[in-house]
Amino acid sequence: MTPEDAMREALAASVAVHGRTSPNPPVGAVVLDAAGEVVGVGATQPPGGPHAEVLALRAAGERARGGTAVVTLEPCAHHGRTPPCTDALIAAGVAAVHVGVADPNPVAAGGARVLGQAGIAVTHSALDVAGGPLRAWLHSVRTGRPHVTWKFAATLDGRSAAADGTSRWITGPEARAEVHEFRSHVDAVVVGTGTARADDPALTARYPDGTDRERQPLRVVVGHSDLRTGSRLDAPDVLHLRTQSPDDVLKALADRGVVDVLLEGGPRLAGAFVQAGRVDRVLAYLAPALLGAGPAALGDAGVGTIGDIARLQVDTVRVVGADVLVDARPA
Amino acid sequence: MTPEDAMREALAASVAVHGRTSPNPPVGAVVLDAAGEVVGVGATQPPGGPHAEVLALRAAGERARGGTAVVTLEPCAHHGRTPPCTDALIAAGVAAVHVGVADPNPVAAGGARVLGQAGIAVTHSALDVAGGPLRAWLHSVRTGRPHVTWKFAATLDGRSAAADGTSRWITGPEARAEVHEFRSHVDAVVVGTGTARADDPALTARYPDGTDRERQPLRVVVGHSDLRTGSRLDAPDVLHLRTQSPDDVLKALADRGVVDVLLEGGPRLAGAFVQAGRVDRVLAYLAPALLGAGPAALGDAGVGTIGDIARLQVDTVRVVGADVLVDARPA
Ligand SMILES: NC(=O)c1ccc[n+]([C@@H]2O[C@H](COP(=O)([O-])OP(=O)(O)OC[C@H]3O[C@@H](n4cnc5c(N)ncnc54)[C@H](OP(=O)(O)O)[C@@H]3O)[C@@H](O)[C@H]2O)c1
Ligand SMILES: NC(=O)c1ccc[n+]([C@@H]2O[C@H](COP(=O)([O-])OP(=O)(O)OC[C@H]3O[C@@H](n4cnc5c(N)ncnc54)[C@H](OP(=O)(O)O)[C@@H]3O)[C@@H](O)[C@H]2O)c1
Repeated sequence: MTPEDAMREALAASVAVHGRTSPNPPVGAVVLDAAGEVVGVGATQPPGGPHAEVLALRAAGERARGGTAVVTLEPCAHHGRTPPCTDALIAAGVAAVHVGVADPNPVAAGGARVLGQAGIAVTHSALDVAGGPLRAWLHSVRTGRPHVTWKFAATLDGRSAAADGTSRWITGPEARAEVHEFRSHVDAVVVGTGTARADDPALTARYPDGTDRERQPLRVVVGHSDLRTGSRLDAPDVLHLRTQSPDDVLKALADRGVVDVLLEGGPRLAGAFVQAGRVDRVLAYLAPALLGAGPAALGDAGVGTIGDIARLQVDTVRVVGADVLVDARPA
Repeated sequence: MTPEDAMREALAASVAVHGRTSPNPPVGAVVLDAAGEVVGVGATQPPGGPHAEVLALRAAGERARGGTAVVTLEPCAHHGRTPPCTDALIAAGVAAVHVGVADPNPVAAGGARVLGQAGIAVTHSALDVAGGPLRAWLHSVRTGRPHVTWKFAATLDGRSAAADGTSRWITGPEARAEVHEFRSHVDAVVVGTGTARADDPALTARYPDGTDRERQPLRVVVGHSDLRTGSRLDAPDVLHLRTQSPDDVLKALADRGVVDVLLEGGPRLAGAFVQAGRVDRVLAYLAPALLGAGPAALGDAGVGTIGDIARLQVDTVRVVGADVLVDARPA
């Protein structure tokens, strides 16, 4: 296969470990032998474990010699918890390395240069690798903050519940299943004390049959109020951050190695994050339905006049079951 | 070409007259000769003028003999303002007729039977002809009421203006251009007195450069209040209906031959139409932007609890410029 086809395989391998690698990036790697056959596939293991390239090279063994290593992220050239991946690639005798995204990390960067100096041809992918599983990690390296995805569910007219507060369920089972899948590969799920009080959510990542998924995010509640005793989030493994500052929240999460955050509302906490410019991705699950009254999906975000509107750009629009998903980011 | 390909041509011909035929249906017709060559195309002319089939047969002349007439709507078999189209098809000697939609009109129906009795093979299209330009007319024949499309523009969080009332422009030029095009092929554009007062809209169908399109809809304002003297809708050709009843509005419009209505808000009038079950299509132009405050796109629609939510089904979702269009209908 071509290196670009192999990049798709490497991306798929990284999807499988997405959520299990933080604070390290979820990287995927494929090794092609000299004839272009896949002889090794790997993906980042949990912190302390081997990197993607090393696993893929291990699987390839001697067949890597003269072949091509295809890696979603530029191989590291520095000693971290593991030796530099560039060493392993050079030792394996690969003739070429095909890279998805350049490493933005000032400490790790330089892998491509090191490889080039060793006589290995380095090429770069034309695929949108940066928009894949590496997205949150890339963001956190660039900004020093975890990446925040704000997910909300609302009707076409922007209501997240009816006038009497009832809301189960606005969106359909397919949209809910997607959210649980999403929860399973982020590091933390965050809500405000208002949502904790009103909905008593579990915030766990579950399968459609209600059973827990293998991987669970850190559950976080934000706000000064106490959680109701005996409520689902009144649990020892739930992090309760008694603050109203989005940046305090992100700092506390970053300190715990969190890279990828799913903000699930409610409207007031989301408004605070939007106002602070701390929403990096918006997932709007819009139910084809109208309410005409009831709480809005987004509370005050500090926008008083149209010139201050928070503009986004649409990455994708998809029909999910009977609902519409708009996936957007700040313009 | 095949009869089904010819149906696509007939649909295209009907799109061109969409908006000029009410209270008659915008029909398109194509005549294929015995070899399958297009020898005539026609579309409904304004009331009193010839029907689509007759025009297409006229263009075809003797070449229609042994050929196939392809018509988006089942040909009429009764004497209206014009003689029955079935007569013309039989006289022209076509061997087959390919029909888009069966005529729901109890007076006009029976065309296919008449043709069959004359030895003409009648087939039916598998295309979604009913969702095309005939949609509003089919609805009005079935229900006795004009078809109402409610169009609104809002942010992803359902706001149609900022907190201070400013709103120009939430959606982009491509979305606005589509709305003007839509206006040019409906029979009437309707707003409430609140929108007339707040926005002083012209409600005309214009080209992006601001010049008027050839065809203009009837402009209608609904509500008891007077229009501001000198405002754009304070014009002799504007219909001011001093009522708050959607059914009164639709009755008054039907009496004027209106089949296809574009309801452009505002939120209170739209709420009344939704509550009355008088919205047959929703065009939601959603700008990828967040406001967090400001007037909602839809006002009270009589929904107090989630069980009474007005469910829609999505027909299409499209990106229009930077915006998202959700085209939906009552479920
Ligand atoms: N449709 C959806 O996607 C969705 C998602 C979630 C929730 N909801 C609905 O939202 C409703 C709850 O709304 P809500 O606004 O009360 O929920 P919320 O945003 O989860 O909680 C609001 C609380 O968060 C705390 N908070 C933390 N930082 C804040 C800040 N910067 N600004 C303001 N408050 C901050 C405050 O609590 P302290 O006073 O304790 O500091 C505040 O009272 C529920 O009915 C729920 O069903 C809908
Ligand atoms: N985003 C959008 O797509 C969009 C579209 C249009 C307007 N808007 C915005 O909407 C705002 C105006 O809001 P609005 O709600 O006042 O506008 P509206 O719905 O156009 O007008 C409300 C008025 O309509 C009359 N009306 C007629 N039938 C009614 C009924 N069954 N129930 C209630 N009222 C009925 C009432 O006037 P009488 O007292 O005279 O009877 C009422 O005051 C403006 O700021 C405008 O910019 C937004």
